[in-house]
Amino acid sequence: MIDLRSDTVTKPTQAMRQAAFEAEVGDDVYSEDPTVQRLEETAARMLGKEAALFVTSGTQGNQIAVLTHCNPGDEILLEANSHLFLYEGASMSALAGVQPRTIQGTRGVMDPEEVRAAIRAEDIHFPETSLICVENTHNKAGGAIVPLGNMQAVYEVAREQQISIHLDGARLFNASIASGVSIEHYAAQADTVQFCLSKGLGAPMGSIIAGSYDFIYKARKWRKRLGGGLRQVGMVAAPGLVALTDMVDRLAEDHDHAQLLAQGLGQIDGLNLEGKVETNIVLINVVDLGKSAEEFLEDLKAIGVLAVPFGPNTVRFVTNYDVSREDIESVIELVEQLV
Amino acid sequence: MIDLRSDTVTKPTQAMRQAAFEAEVGDDVYSEDPTVQRLEETAARMLGKEAALFVTSGTQGNQIAVLTHCNPGDEILLEANSHLFLYEGASMSALAGVQPRTIQGTRGVMDPEEVRAAIRAEDIHFPETSLICVENTHNKAGGAIVPLGNMQAVYEVAREQQISIHLDGARLFNASIASGVSIEHYAAQADTVQFCLSKGLGAPMGSIIAGSYDFIYKARKWRKRLGGGLRQVGMVAAPGLVALTDMVDRLAEDHDHAQLLAQGLGQIDGLNLEGKVETNIVLINVVDLGKSAEEFLEDLKAIGVLAVPFGPNTVRFVTNYDVSREDIESVIELVEQLV
Amino acid sequence: MIDLRSDTVTKPTQAMRQAAFEAEVGDDVYSEDPTVQRLEETAARMLGKEAALFVTSGTQGNQIAVLTHCNPGDEILLEANSHLFLYEGASMSALAGVQPRTIQGTRGVMDPEEVRAAIRAEDIHFPETSLICVENTHNKAGGAIVPLGNMQAVYEVAREQQISIHLDGARLFNASIASGVSIEHYAAQADTVQFCLSKGLGAPMGSIIAGSYDFIYKARKWRKRLGGGLRQVGMVAAPGLVALTDMVDRLAEDHDHAQLLAQGLGQIDGLNLEGKVETNIVLINVVDLGKSAEEFLEDLKAIGVLAVPFGPNTVRFVTNYDVSREDIESVIELVEQLV
Amino acid sequence: MIDLRSDTVTKPTQAMRQAAFEAEVGDDVYSEDPTVQRLEETAARMLGKEAALFVTSGTQGNQIAVLTHCNPGDEILLEANSHLFLYEGASMSALAGVQPRTIQGTRGVMDPEEVRAAIRAEDIHFPETSLICVENTHNKAGGAIVPLGNMQAVYEVAREQQISIHLDGARLFNASIASGVSIEHYAAQADTVQFCLSKGLGAPMGSIIAGSYDFIYKARKWRKRLGGGLRQVGMVAAPGLVALTDMVDRLAEDHDHAQLLAQGLGQIDGLNLEGKVETNIVLINVVDLGKSAEEFLEDLKAIGVLAVPFGPNTVRFVTNYDVSREDIESVIELVEQLV
Repeated sequence: MIDLRSDTVTKPTQAMRQAAFEAEVGDDVYSEDPTVQRLEETAARMLGKEAALFVTSGTQGNQIAVLTHCNPGDEILLEANSHLFLYEGASMSALAGVQPRTIQGTRGVMDPEEVRAAIRAEDIHFPETSLICVENTHNKAGGAIVPLGNMQAVYEVAREQQISIHLDGARLFNASIASGVSIEHYAAQADTVQFCLSKGLGAPMGSIIAGSYDFIYKARKWRKRLGGGLRQVGMVAAPGLVALTDMVDRLAEDHDHAQLLAQGLGQIDGLNLEGKVETNIVLINVVDLGKSAEEFLEDLKAIGVLAVPFGPNTVRFVTNYDVSREDIESVIELVEQLV
Repeated sequence: MIDLRSDTVTKPTQAMRQAAFEAEVGDDVYSEDPTVQRLEETAARMLGKEAALFVTSGTQGNQIAVLTHCNPGDEILLEANSHLFLYEGASMSALAGVQPRTIQGTRGVMDPEEVRAAIRAEDIHFPETSLICVENTHNKAGGAIVPLGNMQAVYEVAREQQISIHLDGARLFNASIASGVSIEHYAAQADTVQFCLSKGLGAPMGSIIAGSYDFIYKARKWRKRLGGGLRQVGMVAAPGLVALTDMVDRLAEDHDHAQLLAQGLGQIDGLNLEGKVETNIVLINVVDLGKSAEEFLEDLKAIGVLAVPFGPNTVRFVTNYDVSREDIESVIELVEQLV
Repeated sequence: MIDLRSDTVTKPTQAMRQAAFEAEVGDDVYSEDPTVQRLEETAARMLGKEAALFVTSGTQGNQIAVLTHCNPGDEILLEANSHLFLYEGASMSALAGVQPRTIQGTRGVMDPEEVRAAIRAEDIHFPETSLICVENTHNKAGGAIVPLGNMQAVYEVAREQQISIHLDGARLFNASIASGVSIEHYAAQADTVQFCLSKGLGAPMGSIIAGSYDFIYKARKWRKRLGGGLRQVGMVAAPGLVALTDMVDRLAEDHDHAQLLAQGLGQIDGLNLEGKVETNIVLINVVDLGKSAEEFLEDLKAIGVLAVPFGPNTVRFVTNYDVSREDIESVIELVEQLV
Repeated sequence: MIDLRSDTVTKPTQAMRQAAFEAEVGDDVYSEDPTVQRLEETAARMLGKEAALFVTSGTQGNQIAVLTHCNPGDEILLEANSHLFLYEGASMSALAGVQPRTIQGTRGVMDPEEVRAAIRAEDIHFPETSLICVENTHNKAGGAIVPLGNMQAVYEVAREQQISIHLDGARLFNASIASGVSIEHYAAQADTVQFCLSKGLGAPMGSIIAGSYDFIYKARKWRKRLGGGLRQVGMVAAPGLVALTDMVDRLAEDHDHAQLLAQGLGQIDGLNLEGKVETNIVLINVVDLGKSAEEFLEDLKAIGVLAVPFGPNTVRFVTNYDVSREDIESVIELVEQLV
């Protein structure tokens, strides 16, 4: 099976396993795990933030950000197809009592003027807009990069109104490698940032949230409430450090593979590339095959290729560390034969 | 001052004051207020529902519906400019932990196919869609009537998926009087209904929610939690009964006045009618005057006319019981002179 | 029927009905109801607070206080048998996400040292103690008065730790009339206060919360979220003003009646007074009759007397405006014959 | 340093590190991690439950149980010093909107009749009692074992009233090893169970919750909402399996060490054993030294011994895998010299 369902399926590397095996550990609830501390310091430095916190997943990082930035009855502005809105089980409302207000973006990019217009005035009928979330790269838009300039413009709107910005950077390293903009530059356009150590970077689990000392102090308590305060968790922080050291630059390979896959599949009759490929995600529309996404995925499975549905007739492929150039070529060939 | 800000400003009639004065009362927390009971029975009968509950406001009725229909982490589908989404302080998220998912309607009317497409599949990443809200008449759309056929189509979608429908009928009587469709027919397209006794019907306060016995039993407890369990509240239920008896038919007058106002203002250079007038709300765009809504409202105030902003350049006028035909004519004249 | 179930059953007086009939009103959501404003100003002045807000019930006032003072994940200290803990449907947790920590009092009075000991230290495992609630008079303790000195001592503890105090003074006027301490003196021992206009004061509905300008500003928004923002509500604020003007001093009568009832019933074999009677509540234990509270209440009902269960063998009687000295004498006689 | 602060400080064993290194993994959000599945199946079998779920911590397991069993506005009965009430940041209220009602136990053991009496009747003022939590062993009571008979009696009360029971068995294996009662027997007295793989069993992180298929299905979604849905988490599930295989029986050693420590310290003038020692926790009162717990802990630290405060004058020592018999003897000697 060639597994292109998600970069989350990436298996930990041998170096990661070795790092876990040797990890120096302590009780992180007492802030005594040296490996976790090293990871948090490294991440904070890379992002140019005062402090960082290791959390168990991107969802946990995002939800802790919402819980820490907002009060119940507040409103969050975010893109209509963002992960926080679509794929986190309505947690922001369930856990934090916060209402999302969505803005339809173009390839995941919100117009700063629409953001400004959506901020609530002070009125007894209105929630208070307390947070804007930006997702970069944008998953549902096919790994699209939100340009730095757009992030700057949105951040300016936010600062004018004293509203915080959280950057859901689950795949921020993909944006950075593809655009050449450092993650620190992206992170400077937000008060807090979340990025994933799993996904493209290949760690078995875990994400980072970063922000001011004060933010992280409060975030730590919310992490405890969610059950994310762990013990000798250096054993999984150690692979996370390997991810940051060894795995960032090689994302370029995934991006090359995605280009290759997109060109290959795009030339097959009946398959149409949706949007352009900027990072490691390829969206293929199969409506011209007269098939639903689910039907086409069945066919793919039969020939040993895994992907996921991403709309009624849209299929998502995500290149990742466990998929080689040869695998990609083989996928193209197999699909060609199939269709 | 001619007050066209809202029909909520309507003062109680002499008959309502008399009814309050004479009201037979009891302790309604013990379900012993005969006037409240009469009001609830009357309302349930008019709506064709098993039971009804007197609540203190439309917002309270809507929020109790959400709390009773939904669990935290659920998702509600509702029109992007609905009152529940825009004007209730994010209560559905703050109190019930529920996430709104908005659908952009046309004059407040949601396309049933878009509703169907927005219902979530079963997936660990997704909230469960547990409620659809329809608003009729639709305030933000300028008192637009949601056609019975559309409500039927949406209800069919909901029933297929075993999702409940709540009808925010704050101004349902306006829809009924204008369209000739009985409120019972509208109510039949929803599991639960809320309508206001204040607003166009002129009662000093209070709304009704109605639904099945089981729904109202649970709703009663949520009402208590919100502090809406009251004592000798027959004193305000009595005016509510007068509202249902004496004030429904005369809404036609408000609608006539709204037509008159729309025609009058629409002919003035620089003022443009937004949408059409179906009930008692008139939206006027003032962008051609080169004025913001707030600036124009200042000018109106100076000539003794009150309205409210409804967008950057949009002003809302609502005809109501305390505004006569002469008042409307006078407003048109005054505005003509002003512009 | 002689109704001693609660002072909440009191019917509005003729003066209250007249006041409702004549009330000058406006739309209170726009803060334009002059009668509501007069009531709020009167109440704030009587309590020595900067501002006050008319709410629909004591429960709503208490919950708004919790929502305004606290954040989710906070802890509240309150007496183990307080109304907020026992009788408000767990609203503080359901709506505000706040955990109650109870302190077992003596006749409703908490030991200030136990309060101090229950305040949480700063620790990642602990909620933050953000509010202490005091109930005066204390309903479940049989209308017991919390002495001013105790309130002062608790307030001192709170101020040391920068924790707010909310006074649930649903029956604060009973405490004041019985003790001779002004409600202003009691209110000075708390940041915010709630008292009921219904109950002993006889208004058909409504309560007041009072505190700083800033508190009331925020409280107003939470009231709106709960559906307590009303329209021409001067019609029920007017009876509330009558309650404050005409009905306070006469509470002494209810207290006399309670003494009379306690002495009368206490002398009957098989009936035992629980605690002492300080205000308008009398608790009678019927265990020596070999009866449960529910059985005894059935017997009482059969002879035309209503009361409520307050424990497995405890029955509560509350004297009120609608029960005369003759009624009390008649109850004693009837119960004597019954037993 | 001899670290007796908690069994949570236990470092993973070499076998655990090896297991992590070699772990067969997959993406557990897709339920494809074979090691996690083996762990969950093993745990379910040991507990005699239909299904189990790997969660990141005991707090997460407990909170997921509350979220799954309860609705907002419900009430939970639990012991006054239970971990869920004292040490989980009020999460049950913050996340689930549930109110705790505490019952003062004797060494952590609740009287079944008090439990019965605390269950709420159906009344509009009352929350619904939907869950009872039992903690075994009971941390704050010094590792006390809740006898099987008591658990049976409480479960009977619960079943009569159709209320669920959740067993917080963070240290359930300690209870089992010390009492000879199998964890399956304990688990049979509850609908759902949580136990920790870290703590005495020494895994670096993680806990198990178990219950019916239906419960686990719903729990899985709440785990995702809390950010506990992880990826190649077999890397920490593998040490968890080692914990269940290799580390259970050796808890007897920790218990022996605790007895030794208790006897040794108990004979020192000024130190008094609090309660009896049943498992791996020793509580020492230092009031006769004229010292606060914090002061005594400072002294201990200076001689190379770590423990934690557990009351104004109470210090907790927890024996664990990383502390040998010699360490214990050395602690006794050092403390003797110190005092």
